[in-house]
Amino acid sequence: MNYFSSDFKLGILGGGQLGKMLLTETRKFDIQTVVLDPSAEAPSRFGCNAFYKGSLIDYDTVYQLGKMVDLLTIEIENVNLEALEKLEEEGLPVYPSPQTLRLIQNKGKQKDFYVKHNIPTSKHQRFVGLDDLHQALNKDELDFPFVWKSAQGGYDGNGVQICRSAMDLVNLPDVECLAEDMVPFKNELAVIVARSTSGEIKTYPVVEMEFHPEANQVEYVICPARIDETVAKKAREIALKVSEAFNHVGLLAVEMFQTENDEILVNEVAPRPHNSGHYSIEASYTSQFENHIRAILDLPLGNTDSKVAGIMVNLVGEEGYSGQVVYENIEKIMAIDGVTPHIYGKRETRPFRKMGHVTIVNEDMTEARRVAEEVKNSIKVISI
Amino acid sequence: MNYFSSDFKLGILGGGQLGKMLLTETRKFDIQTVVLDPSAEAPSRFGCNAFYKGSLIDYDTVYQLGKMVDLLTIEIENVNLEALEKLEEEGLPVYPSPQTLRLIQNKGKQKDFYVKHNIPTSKHQRFVGLDDLHQALNKDELDFPFVWKSAQGGYDGNGVQICRSAMDLVNLPDVECLAEDMVPFKNELAVIVARSTSGEIKTYPVVEMEFHPEANQVEYVICPARIDETVAKKAREIALKVSEAFNHVGLLAVEMFQTENDEILVNEVAPRPHNSGHYSIEASYTSQFENHIRAILDLPLGNTDSKVAGIMVNLVGEEGYSGQVVYENIEKIMAIDGVTPHIYGKRETRPFRKMGHVTIVNEDMTEARRVAEEVKNSIKVISI
Repeated sequence: MNYFSSDFKLGILGGGQLGKMLLTETRKFDIQTVVLDPSAEAPSRFGCNAFYKGSLIDYDTVYQLGKMVDLLTIEIENVNLEALEKLEEEGLPVYPSPQTLRLIQNKGKQKDFYVKHNIPTSKHQRFVGLDDLHQALNKDELDFPFVWKSAQGGYDGNGVQICRSAMDLVNLPDVECLAEDMVPFKNELAVIVARSTSGEIKTYPVVEMEFHPEANQVEYVICPARIDETVAKKAREIALKVSEAFNHVGLLAVEMFQTENDEILVNEVAPRPHNSGHYSIEASYTSQFENHIRAILDLPLGNTDSKVAGIMVNLVGEEGYSGQVVYENIEKIMAIDGVTPHIYGKRETRPFRKMGHVTIVNEDMTEARRVAEEVKNSIKVISI
Repeated sequence: MNYFSSDFKLGILGGGQLGKMLLTETRKFDIQTVVLDPSAEAPSRFGCNAFYKGSLIDYDTVYQLGKMVDLLTIEIENVNLEALEKLEEEGLPVYPSPQTLRLIQNKGKQKDFYVKHNIPTSKHQRFVGLDDLHQALNKDELDFPFVWKSAQGGYDGNGVQICRSAMDLVNLPDVECLAEDMVPFKNELAVIVARSTSGEIKTYPVVEMEFHPEANQVEYVICPARIDETVAKKAREIALKVSEAFNHVGLLAVEMFQTENDEILVNEVAPRPHNSGHYSIEASYTSQFENHIRAILDLPLGNTDSKVAGIMVNLVGEEGYSGQVVYENIEKIMAIDGVTPHIYGKRETRPFRKMGHVTIVNEDMTEARRVAEEVKNSIKVISI
């Protein structure tokens, strides 16, 4: 198949920042792209060959987009799966597969899948709704504390609640859910796996999410994770196993806990380029975005090793500011060696909105970590 | 000045591959761009905010484009300078300045400039036309051998002729020209200098052009050049001096000869991103394209050091092939660690047309050089 400067068309469902960074790679290879996103202001409206505004969860819209292209991928999971299944049935390659997306979209089914495939994960119980969960508590089949999760639709901490007593159940919505054991862990880790249609598979190095000591918020994604070599090796092996189990094609970001006993437990996965891999644009021989393109087109995978240490800091809207965005002190951080801001292209800031990220690279991890803190403390996403 | 996700508009004259790679950086920073190019199929028609098809040498077209933007830059020198001068007079920042472009566009004036500013360069004589040159030969003011150059319009070897005897003069056009001493040199080197509006200045490492032993054609651009530290230091100092002398803003690629006696002689300059800096996308902390944007917007310059050794191989159309392009064996080279193809986005190949380039990076220069040769011998730009 000839993808380069040819008639081949790649469809991308979703036009956010992940799509935008994918487009950088499709332009580099001159691969034609067609993008669908509900917002006319989507960051991916530039850099594609054709952009369509439309719903990602509407059957007809997604189906029609699929009929325009030679291969379909996603940059967001919440898309109409029936349309993808129909398209696949009609012979269109869809990566990741709608079957995988369906499995992953339901966190209960996702956890069952890990258990079935002998992939280490925290213990869980599934419930059809709140009544079901209360009954389990009453029958002592479930004990406090546990982590409540909505089976569908949660992201970035939404749809998750730590339950230490009945008090914590009061405001939970009555939806399909699961309860997971609370596992004391010392690190949150992630491994991105790239797997091509013909089964070539590679992992990126393990990254570490460093949290703010008070606000329970990821502050830095650090590559490589500052953990033992043996633990890192185990994490990469488990991530490979997860990707193989899903028979996944494209990128799979595997989020994991490193427990107090150095066990690795899989938390959840994202079947696409992931925030935890943004550092790879500057730090890796091949960025996660390029490897996603290579994987779904069955091109050879690129080297996932790092040239230098990399740390990523998310740029989110400051509390108390809404409207036309201003990146305060961006010139100040750009004066530091190895600092690269990525501005996603959203005109309007809102509290906690993901507006961009900054990558810090350095030959020396300690220096990179020092600079990352300087960056974090300098730049502010505010409004005019 | 707020450039990021703002109303600020950057104009770019020319929409070729240099413009395309500049646009990657403007998208990363979400800086609005307006591009002008005579071809509706120009590689930069994607990735900009607005694309206009129109002549770069027509006064009105260039002037009108200038009136739409807040700052104007170029990716090709051959643009209407009168329009740029008028725009600058009316207050529009134009980088590089039309004065510099005018000086550089005429190779005779450019050489005079080096002499005037004590910048080492080979000896030269200027002639208004062929008669003038013949007279100098007759009067023994000029001796064979010499290098004949057309004062205007030459590039990539066009407009240059080595003259060893009267025979070599037969087919020369009757245009303003210069004759330069033939200098025996052991290396062709280049240094890219970035200089911002407020005068911050940095050089990239010295690169070396390695020529095919028989066909007199650049095969590899190698960074860093495999030369003595003292020679490299001298080359960077001279390049700095050239950029300062021009009071240049933006990138200046300074092409130089390293003579048999390790003298450095400036050959010519290009006031923009340059083929000899393409390696920087993968190998440098900050690519030449990002530093051009930083320089003209007076943002702090990024680190010009390399993370790893980098070698670039140009992808030019094979002789004997014209039409819809095919990159034969591209999958083969993509399977090698550290190999990144850049496909410029030209559908039609022609003999010797610049269609793309490949960057090879590696921690070890010897290994990078070995891989570069493998790449060069594998990939072929042919047609269907």
